[in-house]
Amino acid sequence: MSTQPLLINGTWRESTGAETFQAVNPATKQTMPDEFPVSPWSEVEETLKAADVAFTTIRSWPGERFAAFLESYANIIEARTDSIVDLAHQETGLPVEPRLKNVELPRKTNQLRLAAAAARDGSWVNATIDTAAGIRSQLAPIGPVAVFGPNNFPLAFNSIAGGDFAAAVAAGNPVIAKGHSSHPGTTRLLAEAAHEAAQATDMPPGFVQLIYRTSHQDGAKLVSHRLLGASGYTGSRHAGLVLKEAADRVGKPIYLELSSINPVFILPGALLERGDALAEEFSTSCLMGAGQFCTNPGIVVLKAGTEADQFVDAVSAAFAKATPGTLLSGGVEQNFRAGLVALQRAGAEVLTGNEPADSGRFCYANTLLKVTGDKFLENPHGLQEEAFGNASLFVIASDEDQLARISEQFEGNLTGCFYTETKGKDDALYDRLAPIIRQRVGRLLNDKMPTGVAVSPAMNHGGPFPATGHPGFTAVGIPAAITRFAMLQCYDNVRPHRLPPALQDRNPGDMWRRIDGSWTQSDV
Amino acid sequence: MSTQPLLINGTWRESTGAETFQAVNPATKQTMPDEFPVSPWSEVEETLKAADVAFTTIRSWPGERFAAFLESYANIIEARTDSIVDLAHQETGLPVEPRLKNVELPRKTNQLRLAAAAARDGSWVNATIDTAAGIRSQLAPIGPVAVFGPNNFPLAFNSIAGGDFAAAVAAGNPVIAKGHSSHPGTTRLLAEAAHEAAQATDMPPGFVQLIYRTSHQDGAKLVSHRLLGASGYTGSRHAGLVLKEAADRVGKPIYLELSSINPVFILPGALLERGDALAEEFSTSCLMGAGQFCTNPGIVVLKAGTEADQFVDAVSAAFAKATPGTLLSGGVEQNFRAGLVALQRAGAEVLTGNEPADSGRFCYANTLLKVTGDKFLENPHGLQEEAFGNASLFVIASDEDQLARISEQFEGNLTGCFYTETKGKDDALYDRLAPIIRQRVGRLLNDKMPTGVAVSPAMNHGGPFPATGHPGFTAVGIPAAITRFAMLQCYDNVRPHRLPPALQDRNPGDMWRRIDGSWTQSDV
Repeated sequence: MSTQPLLINGTWRESTGAETFQAVNPATKQTMPDEFPVSPWSEVEETLKAADVAFTTIRSWPGERFAAFLESYANIIEARTDSIVDLAHQETGLPVEPRLKNVELPRKTNQLRLAAAAARDGSWVNATIDTAAGIRSQLAPIGPVAVFGPNNFPLAFNSIAGGDFAAAVAAGNPVIAKGHSSHPGTTRLLAEAAHEAAQATDMPPGFVQLIYRTSHQDGAKLVSHRLLGASGYTGSRHAGLVLKEAADRVGKPIYLELSSINPVFILPGALLERGDALAEEFSTSCLMGAGQFCTNPGIVVLKAGTEADQFVDAVSAAFAKATPGTLLSGGVEQNFRAGLVALQRAGAEVLTGNEPADSGRFCYANTLLKVTGDKFLENPHGLQEEAFGNASLFVIASDEDQLARISEQFEGNLTGCFYTETKGKDDALYDRLAPIIRQRVGRLLNDKMPTGVAVSPAMNHGGPFPATGHPGFTAVGIPAAITRFAMLQCYDNVRPHRLPPALQDRNPGDMWRRIDGSWTQSDV
Repeated sequence: MSTQPLLINGTWRESTGAETFQAVNPATKQTMPDEFPVSPWSEVEETLKAADVAFTTIRSWPGERFAAFLESYANIIEARTDSIVDLAHQETGLPVEPRLKNVELPRKTNQLRLAAAAARDGSWVNATIDTAAGIRSQLAPIGPVAVFGPNNFPLAFNSIAGGDFAAAVAAGNPVIAKGHSSHPGTTRLLAEAAHEAAQATDMPPGFVQLIYRTSHQDGAKLVSHRLLGASGYTGSRHAGLVLKEAADRVGKPIYLELSSINPVFILPGALLERGDALAEEFSTSCLMGAGQFCTNPGIVVLKAGTEADQFVDAVSAAFAKATPGTLLSGGVEQNFRAGLVALQRAGAEVLTGNEPADSGRFCYANTLLKVTGDKFLENPHGLQEEAFGNASLFVIASDEDQLARISEQFEGNLTGCFYTETKGKDDALYDRLAPIIRQRVGRLLNDKMPTGVAVSPAMNHGGPFPATGHPGFTAVGIPAAITRFAMLQCYDNVRPHRLPPALQDRNPGDMWRRIDGSWTQSDV
């Protein structure tokens, strides 16, 4: 059986590399039959050259062209739903229904269509016109984008179909997708669909390309290459920081989503009012998908007291009772266990779980840990270690002052949640704690678990380092996510007929533009 | 005579450091009387702690408070125009009139007032409301900002009064200013005005602070400190990259303006049509302020021919005739000479200048260099070395194909200019070259020298690396420059009374907000 081909410069072809790898079905621990290539640098370089040629062709194309591609792609994916979700299920252990078929795949095609609509509409370019000074500016595509997808969303964040891909394409860039090694087959199926959509909509050969794996060193060369415009990376902090360093050194934008423990504060009034319901809500959220979400609630802060004890007991019981989900891979299980060991070394005690579960698949018992506020404050850094999986840590503060001091110790996170009593009993404490957490998270929630990440223009799936590399950008949400893959281009005294359509006097459509300080859909 | 005091936590006080430095009048080479301290790390840390306390106080303040400060500050500066421009003249050698008094100081106070208006209006926060999903987001202050000012604009880019300062304050952040060592007295006068304005408008003590100098190591510690939000740096590439590396490692945004040679293409039709006028326009632009502008036209690309020869001769004559301007410091003169040596080593030949001028002041002859397109293509990197000062390099391409190949070799620049014949004779060549340069510069100009940088909402004073650290941001232009010093904050399901004013249903003023996809000044 031969190795699966790569998609380079519009052609599916054999890799020249000697090394290969195979996916493993995490629900059976069986190695899957297909072999996938590890690309040598020469192949990565070929994708860069082809993407550069493609970019030269498409950089002045109207958004309509990219919209057509994205919509065609969404349609093809939908027509192949069953084969895609079936293979994704085999490679990730995630349930076909509802997760892959009814949630993640529709989320992805919806995202592709929203990106298409934004590309067609064009308002995302933030056209700014100063008629008096004769200066006009807009965001414009930055050049070929490398996308590194994560393990935990084989569809919605897939390197060749997910959020970063859709955003990079909507901005008008070619994409070099680097698939995640844990679901190469799913990525191949999606790349086939992308390639067909690209052909159907007359995109140039180097517009969408796929490589499966490279050495870490070649990954760093890719993100810092002169022909590359920018990169998007979702994954582990360690590997992400290696890429970040390489890209930063040469000023190539790289957008990272690295790690987050997503603190949840349940204030005393809320516990008293609806502790049982919250215990259930929390347990469901935390165990969903075996906790393998970037926004999984990995730490819960409570004020000591009877209600807190009852809440902890109720969650412990729910965790003990629930069947642990399947983890995405052997590596995830290994890292999860290492994370739990690190938390214990840092002072956390085990409430439930922390033991091997079903040995026939990758999994580990649903685990809860606990630490006092005093202990947390002794080692706040060590106790913010991410244990990516079906676990959470309770931090029990002695009083309100300690809650505030704990809040001040949080590193950058994607989200922070507050549950408070409905009639205002917790409001004074909220007003004290929320501003502290606000500065440390991208998204602040009330009375809601963080695991859902709506594709909304107002969403921020981002936050301060180390959750991401820059607190001003979001990985989810159209049009904001698109602007990451753009550069600011200003035209000063440029002759009118040479201006790009978005900056000409006549509005090319219904685009929102800022003309002399006011937003309008009118002509100049 | 004692050392000049620092402004830390609302108080002017002695430095605890032992080391001092003095400014030198570049027009006389005389050391100026005042001594200024080099701050040890303990003092830098004090500013960070004070700024952090100040930020906790002001982070939820309305823009009106920052507007009041900025306007008060602008008024105080104006009232002290004469003393400020007089000292700036002594420290920099820049002429009092028109440069400092009639151009740079009014530019600065205008910038402070535009920043005030933007802070008051609030539209810069980009409030985005998704009513159906219950998700709302806005940009919000990022935390204390360190500003490192450059040598070449003692007023308009001064660390405690210039563009980065105004933008950081308008966003609602405290500022730690690190003055430039070549004009510490001017910076002190401005800091006195800032301090008085802060007191008059009831800002907290750590809101504006000033240190004059630190070790390079402590500068790197400052930009990467956990209490810092972000940094703005304008200056040499080498020192900037050291700061960038430190800040990047811990994910602290740092906005840099590093170096730029600003290619100017004068196409054959334009030379034929108005070569003499262009020679004069170019010479004036390039020699203004002794060429010490970030947007100085440091390289001119021409197609070989009689008109090109005539143009080169005319510019050479103008350069030989004009009295060379005074350079900002001995260091600038030294680097300028080293830059010219490097360009010659890389293959450039001297047309005029390249010799010492008046020995009583820091200066060097107006210098023109020339290289063939063939030579340029042999060593494009070496021939893009910035010689910061009154010099420029002509690149003479053999034909149109070579013009295109030369264009492709340009690194990231702030600006790129094209001069073309007025009736369209050069249009085909423009259409070939401009897209190549477009991708490599922040601002593309037609028939205009790049040295003027209007404070326009549509301005981009930025560009791809190595001109800056990120091609998506501008250092000049309100409101875009403000957004650099902000983080994206999303509110998901947050109870209405807890939302910040910009995100409540009722518009707090005339703010532009994007509600359900449409920009409006109305309420929800």
